[in-house]
Amino acid sequence: MQKSYSFDPVGIIHSPYKTKESAPIQGIFRPDTTGWVEVFPEYAEGLHDVEMFSHLILVYHLDRAGPVELIRPTLLDDDVHGIFASRHPARPNYIGLNIVRLVKREGNRLEVGGLDVIDKTPLIDIKPYVARFDSFPDACEGWFAGKEDRPKPFGRE
Amino acid sequence: MQKSYSFDPVGIIHSPYKTKESAPIQGIFRPDTTGWVEVFPEYAEGLHDVEMFSHLILVYHLDRAGPVELIRPTLLDDDVHGIFASRHPARPNYIGLNIVRLVKREGNRLEVGGLDVIDKTPLIDIKPYVARFDSFPDACEGWFAGKEDRPKPFGRE
Repeated sequence: MQKSYSFDPVGIIHSPYKTKESAPIQGIFRPDTTGWVEVFPEYAEGLHDVEMFSHLILVYHLDRAGPVELIRPTLLDDDVHGIFASRHPARPNYIGLNIVRLVKREGNRLEVGGLDVIDKTPLIDIKPYVARFDSFPDACEGWFAGKEDRPKPFGRE
Repeated sequence: MQKSYSFDPVGIIHSPYKTKESAPIQGIFRPDTTGWVEVFPEYAEGLHDVEMFSHLILVYHLDRAGPVELIRPTLLDDDVHGIFASRHPARPNYIGLNIVRLVKREGNRLEVGGLDVIDKTPLIDIKPYVARFDSFPDACEGWFAGKEDRPKPFGRE
């Protein structure tokens, strides 16, 4: 018998992108646009020393994604790929990841650059990005090689 | 009123590390040790094309972590740091991330290197690691700079 787990948001991401269609497919396609990560006051103590880092990993709930499809066309490519070989939001458990640049901290609010998140996305966790653990510049990009940002299809999740 | 979300594991991670004390603090400290990621058969279709990638991001549930502490000493350092400036497992929502090297795929099982996960950890998601989106080799390491693997303290979570 598999167990279900539950989680409660620790904050909310305030993004200039109000709709799916207005957000870039990945934050690196619009690195200079900034938004604010608000950590709820009861979790603010956990931000101690966060300003020592230039980059953070935001973990969030893809709360406006469509129904899960295990194999499907993606936002970057019209070919079908498995969801575990894709970053498409319609994925089991709806967990999103966005590595962002920390611009500044003001109390329990962090200004960050390179967002691809829609406004009011529930924040689940923040982790410091550590190049030694997280940076693999020679990793093979698979089918992502050469793919660029493009308009998101309206009327298709 | 904040909303709670729930998630169901999509697989299980079989690791050679049976206890917290035997696992490295981060996978890069023992890159050659391999384990197996088992994706449950009902999700196996989502693995299509995963073998095109050299590295994968495993998202998992830190199911054996101790009680959450927002500010605490870490496994790498005796100074206290906020949990959002730390990779310590005792974090709100108990979500873990491990970037691993894909060695091979056999059906719904993936052999991976560079694990730091304990055996039988519930898998929540797999994402392809894409260097253009995820690799920031010049990111500032904050207090992690120069820190090396060390024995985990027994009797302290």
